[in-house]
Amino acid sequence: MHRHLQLTEQGKLKHFLTIDGLSRELLTEILDTAESFADMSGKQVKKVPLLRGKTIINLFFENSTRTRTTFELAATRLSADVLTMNIATSSTSKGESLLDTIRNLEAMHVDMFVVRHALSGAAHFIAQHVAPHISVINAGDGQHSHPTQAMLDMFTIRQHKKQFAGLKIAIVGDILHSRVARSQILALNTLGVAEVRVIAPKTLLPTQVRSMGVIDLQDMAEGLQDVDVIIMLRLQKERMNSAFLPSESEYFRCFGLTEAKLKYAKPDVVVMHPGPINRGVEIASSVADGPHSVILQQVSNGIAVRMAVMSMTFPAHGTTTA
Amino acid sequence: MHRHLQLTEQGKLKHFLTIDGLSRELLTEILDTAESFADMSGKQVKKVPLLRGKTIINLFFENSTRTRTTFELAATRLSADVLTMNIATSSTSKGESLLDTIRNLEAMHVDMFVVRHALSGAAHFIAQHVAPHISVINAGDGQHSHPTQAMLDMFTIRQHKKQFAGLKIAIVGDILHSRVARSQILALNTLGVAEVRVIAPKTLLPTQVRSMGVIDLQDMAEGLQDVDVIIMLRLQKERMNSAFLPSESEYFRCFGLTEAKLKYAKPDVVVMHPGPINRGVEIASSVADGPHSVILQQVSNGIAVRMAVMSMTFPAHGTTTA
Amino acid sequence: MHRHLQLTEQGKLKHFLTIDGLSRELLTEILDTAESFADMSGKQVKKVPLLRGKTIINLFFENSTRTRTTFELAATRLSADVLTMNIATSSTSKGESLLDTIRNLEAMHVDMFVVRHALSGAAHFIAQHVAPHISVINAGDGQHSHPTQAMLDMFTIRQHKKQFAGLKIAIVGDILHSRVARSQILALNTLGVAEVRVIAPKTLLPTQVRSMGVIDLQDMAEGLQDVDVIIMLRLQKERMNSAFLPSESEYFRCFGLTEAKLKYAKPDVVVMHPGPINRGVEIASSVADGPHSVILQQVSNGIAVRMAVMSMTFPAHGTTTA
Repeated sequence: MHRHLQLTEQGKLKHFLTIDGLSRELLTEILDTAESFADMSGKQVKKVPLLRGKTIINLFFENSTRTRTTFELAATRLSADVLTMNIATSSTSKGESLLDTIRNLEAMHVDMFVVRHALSGAAHFIAQHVAPHISVINAGDGQHSHPTQAMLDMFTIRQHKKQFAGLKIAIVGDILHSRVARSQILALNTLGVAEVRVIAPKTLLPTQVRSMGVIDLQDMAEGLQDVDVIIMLRLQKERMNSAFLPSESEYFRCFGLTEAKLKYAKPDVVVMHPGPINRGVEIASSVADGPHSVILQQVSNGIAVRMAVMSMTFPAHGTTTA
Repeated sequence: MHRHLQLTEQGKLKHFLTIDGLSRELLTEILDTAESFADMSGKQVKKVPLLRGKTIINLFFENSTRTRTTFELAATRLSADVLTMNIATSSTSKGESLLDTIRNLEAMHVDMFVVRHALSGAAHFIAQHVAPHISVINAGDGQHSHPTQAMLDMFTIRQHKKQFAGLKIAIVGDILHSRVARSQILALNTLGVAEVRVIAPKTLLPTQVRSMGVIDLQDMAEGLQDVDVIIMLRLQKERMNSAFLPSESEYFRCFGLTEAKLKYAKPDVVVMHPGPINRGVEIASSVADGPHSVILQQVSNGIAVRMAVMSMTFPAHGTTTA
Repeated sequence: MHRHLQLTEQGKLKHFLTIDGLSRELLTEILDTAESFADMSGKQVKKVPLLRGKTIINLFFENSTRTRTTFELAATRLSADVLTMNIATSSTSKGESLLDTIRNLEAMHVDMFVVRHALSGAAHFIAQHVAPHISVINAGDGQHSHPTQAMLDMFTIRQHKKQFAGLKIAIVGDILHSRVARSQILALNTLGVAEVRVIAPKTLLPTQVRSMGVIDLQDMAEGLQDVDVIIMLRLQKERMNSAFLPSESEYFRCFGLTEAKLKYAKPDVVVMHPGPINRGVEIASSVADGPHSVILQQVSNGIAVRMAVMSMTFPAHGTTTA
């Protein structure tokens, strides 16, 4: 179903909603396109006229400074006109339905929606109902999917490891609630890594986690053994006061990434985190700022990957690309 | 008085504050100019360099996502630099007067103010006091006027009915508090329609309504008889808890536009609404989404009309137009 | 220390954090550069492509409509892409440290930070830790420094008095808490005026004020005698309820600038105020709006001076200037 929704009849990207159903070829095309934009970022003039005269609306029903900022910068560097709407303060508070809001923005000749929403499936819903010439990019929907985050992580892994075949990857933390982990697991398996492990306390693992094609472990010593990449997840502090977790210090002792635990992994392991990091909760400062960390490169790559996805969804309705 | 304020000595538009005092020729010029911008909206590159290097400030003392967004898009598509100020959160909260705020923005070499304010006359006040090279556009002032909304409605009517002569138009709802209705009535009469009817419960009709050149009715069956256009007004829910109205369902039963009531009108009637709509309060969903509805075309036309008014007020101080 | 931080090895401006340590030649270069931009402001197209493709982030940890707006307009008129972040509502509320926020924005290939913060030294701290290719401009830090405000004041003084030598300047008001006064005193002394006087009640004077190279006085008749320029400071109303001051009317009687007190100064005195003004508290309306006032020219000059500083800090990392 997703396949049909987010691809054109020619198999090109029309929307970018989820990693689910996308082929290894398409994911690789995204990474290759992002590479050309990554080269550009260090240049004196960081702009290309690819989307000049296009209107992109950032529809943020859920606040996120980092994601919003990178999407804004990506759109601006493609020369698009971008308008950010914080929907909590908009007409929906006058009782207008989501669909009416979308219909109205469509009527303003908008070309693309970047959607962030606390409800799983929100971006899909909009993509299902939007006019045929409009692209929808999912910037995070509930606990379901965060595909641009997953792709910037894949980009960063390829940057350091050159290829996916043979890699062992560990994802550590709150797998249960993480849209990031869900998208990462799908992308890593599609791109053909050797092994994806998830490491978390039992209360933070989905019950059917093995059906996702991962190995689940509850011990860092075992889980990090010989891995090439460690992806730490952000611990939502609001889970802390719930039944899911003991104290912060207890969590850090068992699952926090320290220099000592890093020794279980391969000597050239890279450490990743979607940010913002909780120092001393899921990761020690010495690791976050240490030689294995590629956390800030992930942020840089985020702009290149978002530029790639934004420009790739456009040819579907008749614009030329780079 | 308005005539002198908003026109140059040559009778050209300098500010756009109210429909009051504008000639049929000038309103027609606005519609004709908007038509060239409407053609542009479907294009791949939706930008013209008409206002490049100009600075437009959106002064919103009253929140309105839809109006603010269309003005921002209109300014951006004319290549102007646009800066939106939500004045509730600005220096006025430090006790600075409106006039001091305006003087300061003037000093920043601003070229145009788009003003939305809860007080009637706010845009006029600013136009009276602003430096001679600055244009002021009224984006809604209290219960007084909303001239760009009225003109986008006129544009939509002309689009469907080709000419105004001979048309019978019904405006339904809260006429008493509606700046939109006030501006529409002035525009329709200036453009020479055959008949403007207002349909509302007595409590929502101004006492001297007939002096505005309309026929007032309190019955939908009679009021919609043979009309070419029905303009529904938004019901402000805050009126509901007042003495003005009974219940929502009672209002809908009497004045809500349903498919049944639509049958009183001409077979090719068009249904309009300034949005956002209250489904099931002033209009049935089947009508809002039905074949007679042109509600979303109104939104599209709003951008073209605002581009027209913005570009027309500029030649007054020496810029060339399209 | 500041000298080394804000200048390149060739003595060019790299950051703009404080007036402290800058030479008369450099301050004069800023004023000369601003002059070319001031000429531009009246033009039909108020844009130059100097910073095209550059990304400037306005980091406002403290709200200020006026300063934020002038920095946004300055950046826009230099053709930069500018993104304003109100940090109170950003990731720092998720517990991310200031340094992590900066590191993340750096990774997005930002070229310049404009920083406003309630803590003294915030901009210095960021400049000390930022990547070498990024410029930092201080838009006000605590009670420490507001160097662009001081330079726009210098620009305005030079505009009216042609040279600084021989001038007698009085600064009136809350010297103790004013970052503006601190920066003005440094700039005036560097530029070689004859005499800087500060006039304030004892409770609003720093104890070591004479070490700043000023004459302190508590009487307007004596203090304004024969001055060429009067700089009024804004009275922070929140000081009123403290032990610092008696009532507003008592303050106005003693230190408010009236037409009567203006007579003590030279006949061609100019009156300045950083705004927003409190009419009838520190200044009478007749003086603020009178022939000696250059308050609104200060606002205009603020954009030119900010464009100058922004463009001057760029060549340090390889861009050409006008």
